[in-house]
Amino acid sequence: MQPKTDITFRTRKWVKPEDLNANGTLFGGSLLRWIDEEAAIYAIVQLGNQRAVTKYMSEIEFVASAVQGDIIEMGLTATKFGRTSLTMRAQVRNMITRELILSIDKIVFVNLDKEGKPTPHGYTEITYDRDRIPTTAVPIVNELRRPER
Amino acid sequence: MQPKTDITFRTRKWVKPEDLNANGTLFGGSLLRWIDEEAAIYAIVQLGNQRAVTKYMSEIEFVASAVQGDIIEMGLTATKFGRTSLTMRAQVRNMITRELILSIDKIVFVNLDKEGKPTPHGYTEITYDRDRIPTTAVPIVNELRRPER
Amino acid sequence: MQPKTDITFRTRKWVKPEDLNANGTLFGGSLLRWIDEEAAIYAIVQLGNQRAVTKYMSEIEFVASAVQGDIIEMGLTATKFGRTSLTMRAQVRNMITRELILSIDKIVFVNLDKEGKPTPHGYTEITYDRDRIPTTAVPIVNELRRPER
Amino acid sequence: MQPKTDITFRTRKWVKPEDLNANGTLFGGSLLRWIDEEAAIYAIVQLGNQRAVTKYMSEIEFVASAVQGDIIEMGLTATKFGRTSLTMRAQVRNMITRELILSIDKIVFVNLDKEGKPTPHGYTEITYDRDRIPTTAVPIVNELRRPER
Amino acid sequence: MQPKTDITFRTRKWVKPEDLNANGTLFGGSLLRWIDEEAAIYAIVQLGNQRAVTKYMSEIEFVASAVQGDIIEMGLTATKFGRTSLTMRAQVRNMITRELILSIDKIVFVNLDKEGKPTPHGYTEITYDRDRIPTTAVPIVNELRRPER
Amino acid sequence: MQPKTDITFRTRKWVKPEDLNANGTLFGGSLLRWIDEEAAIYAIVQLGNQRAVTKYMSEIEFVASAVQGDIIEMGLTATKFGRTSLTMRAQVRNMITRELILSIDKIVFVNLDKEGKPTPHGYTEITYDRDRIPTTAVPIVNELRRPER
Repeated sequence: MQPKTDITFRTRKWVKPEDLNANGTLFGGSLLRWIDEEAAIYAIVQLGNQRAVTKYMSEIEFVASAVQGDIIEMGLTATKFGRTSLTMRAQVRNMITRELILSIDKIVFVNLDKEGKPTPHGYTEITYDRDRIPTTAVPIVNELRRPER
Repeated sequence: MQPKTDITFRTRKWVKPEDLNANGTLFGGSLLRWIDEEAAIYAIVQLGNQRAVTKYMSEIEFVASAVQGDIIEMGLTATKFGRTSLTMRAQVRNMITRELILSIDKIVFVNLDKEGKPTPHGYTEITYDRDRIPTTAVPIVNELRRPER
Repeated sequence: MQPKTDITFRTRKWVKPEDLNANGTLFGGSLLRWIDEEAAIYAIVQLGNQRAVTKYMSEIEFVASAVQGDIIEMGLTATKFGRTSLTMRAQVRNMITRELILSIDKIVFVNLDKEGKPTPHGYTEITYDRDRIPTTAVPIVNELRRPER
Repeated sequence: MQPKTDITFRTRKWVKPEDLNANGTLFGGSLLRWIDEEAAIYAIVQLGNQRAVTKYMSEIEFVASAVQGDIIEMGLTATKFGRTSLTMRAQVRNMITRELILSIDKIVFVNLDKEGKPTPHGYTEITYDRDRIPTTAVPIVNELRRPER
Repeated sequence: MQPKTDITFRTRKWVKPEDLNANGTLFGGSLLRWIDEEAAIYAIVQLGNQRAVTKYMSEIEFVASAVQGDIIEMGLTATKFGRTSLTMRAQVRNMITRELILSIDKIVFVNLDKEGKPTPHGYTEITYDRDRIPTTAVPIVNELRRPER
Repeated sequence: MQPKTDITFRTRKWVKPEDLNANGTLFGGSLLRWIDEEAAIYAIVQLGNQRAVTKYMSEIEFVASAVQGDIIEMGLTATKFGRTSLTMRAQVRNMITRELILSIDKIVFVNLDKEGKPTPHGYTEITYDRDRIPTTAVPIVNELRRPER
């Protein structure tokens, strides 16, 4: 039994007309947008760093869809702490029908330093407390990262 | 101590440029949109009925704002089960700064029947299980509710 | 008779699918987003300052909803000029059905200086002219307001 | 002097990050989206019919842009009542800088019957009252209008 | 050389503030939303059927990000026609920097009949003409697909 | 025959509920937003400069509408290279019904220098290669362009 690696479902969405595809069911692209934001939030809290970016997603099985009025919940758990990376497992469920909607075995985020390069985060296991929430923010400079070529 | 009325924080948002007002801080209107959706989800789960609508919000104190990159979390708890209504208390917090962003003492939802009239829901206390999730959905008929005048 | 404190309805919205909740009626959160933007605009014009932020809303009664195709109009009037604040009364009406949709007795905005602190605005009554429109804009610096903790 | 054809400015927008193009100024496409909605609302009120659709816009001069934090106001006036059509003149102004942003000399809407065909509306001049607001709504059937080919 | 399986880049996006994450770079979720829509369009055209839904995506490598002002282009090519499915390969490129942004080796769509069950589509190779565009549309009934449980 | 000035259709959109007006057909404002973005992309690529802004659109005929589930494609071609400007012709077509949706004879973009003033671009004909894509980006400074008045 591994209660500590069980997925905790947190963020919920209520499927509204703006989330539907042209067939009137939940648009897959909306779903992917939601889970990517939830993964970013999870990674920021685990790594105590706002400079964490999506690097990789393993294969995605679209098990079921959802319709207008359904309530969706998203869950994540850390499965591996690399030196500069964090691997998470994600599931999206339908609270109304209780069906699994999709699952992604591995979502990998990388911890970056101020220059945008991978940097060790120093953690090896999940925090269930809020001891790693970043206390400094990323300066929003919108500077150009692109050299002349 | 009242553990049962403690607020549980669930849905989280990562403040992105699309959520900012013209001053570059979190737009109050976005915040109100988020908390209203979260309250609808909470009410639907507690009342086991998708036909639950916002009827009333008590006064709202905007305690703090938030900036791009902040993570916001929203929490609700049921505080009173009326005959046809549900009263909730809501808080929005900043996970990064730990500040309270806003709190609303009373958000009242009303339980409706198929004709859109208030109807008793039969519940008197909070469920922490998922035993009340509606198992039938609201037919989306988009019919016109408006008589000739 | 107080023509000067009568509400003037200005901004209008045409209720489109993107504005609906999962039940197919106007989403309360969209409505709150609209009225908050309209209040910000009203306050900026009255105070001649773009650094005006929502501080407080008194209780909100959701009197009626609206459906796709309805036209909504939003109105505000200043009801009190404090030393650093402005209090407004707001109403949202349905132009098609003529029903009141919601009303908020007090929306309070605070006039801020460059450091984000409340500062006197110097006005004591409503302008019906455009003599107070700010002629300088807020530098958009996106600077971080958050100290190390 | 023609007070009856003067433009009345009603709906206002506060330019937020979500409205900007990639250069950080007001996106022309957002502006066209706003004026088209405002014209639809104006036409519906003048023709007393929700089945009014955009048929034509005369040339559009983009006179000035706007930046984040600006307040935009949109104005329309009916300039000609055809048998089945309504012609309007539109202007968009910057309330902060007082500059004209764009003007469109002719926006033509056509009045449709239930089958979607042009039908006479019976009006010959502007109403300044609300005597023409439609009292029945368009059934939202989403039926398919498209025959086999 | 296999000209027939080469990817054709079609839809382009201009990265605007609304597409950015909280770090000010292109939000991964926006990107996934764009590629899912483009894949749906590609599948509909190849299968001549609007009832085609995402079933599976193979692993996704996020090779590079993009910044405000970049132009993104999306390309797809069919790689395998199953009995009821279509497999596509997708790439997203940055037109400005010429970098690959992400690639997905396999996106599988399934061809559905009116009851939403997989059904043979009858095709075995790519069309470069428009001979398969569906000529009938999916009735938008929004009916409830969910039985009592 | 002028193959080189023929319109090339590139970007496609799948009409979803979020794109509909209150009558349930494609919202004209959404359409104008799409074509303006596509024109900006086309101009940036032709002029090799991200500082290109919409200056003028000739009259717009709304020939046909579209419904949920339709696929729209947008096409542009350069028709005239002025000293500081570029003129394009635009068409929007429905891939499903093959109907023309709208056409705009002239969309004029102006090439700007760093101070936002029109500046010669030095081109006299269309590129079909990617030799003009800008390799430096516009610094996103959000500076205030507005003097005291």
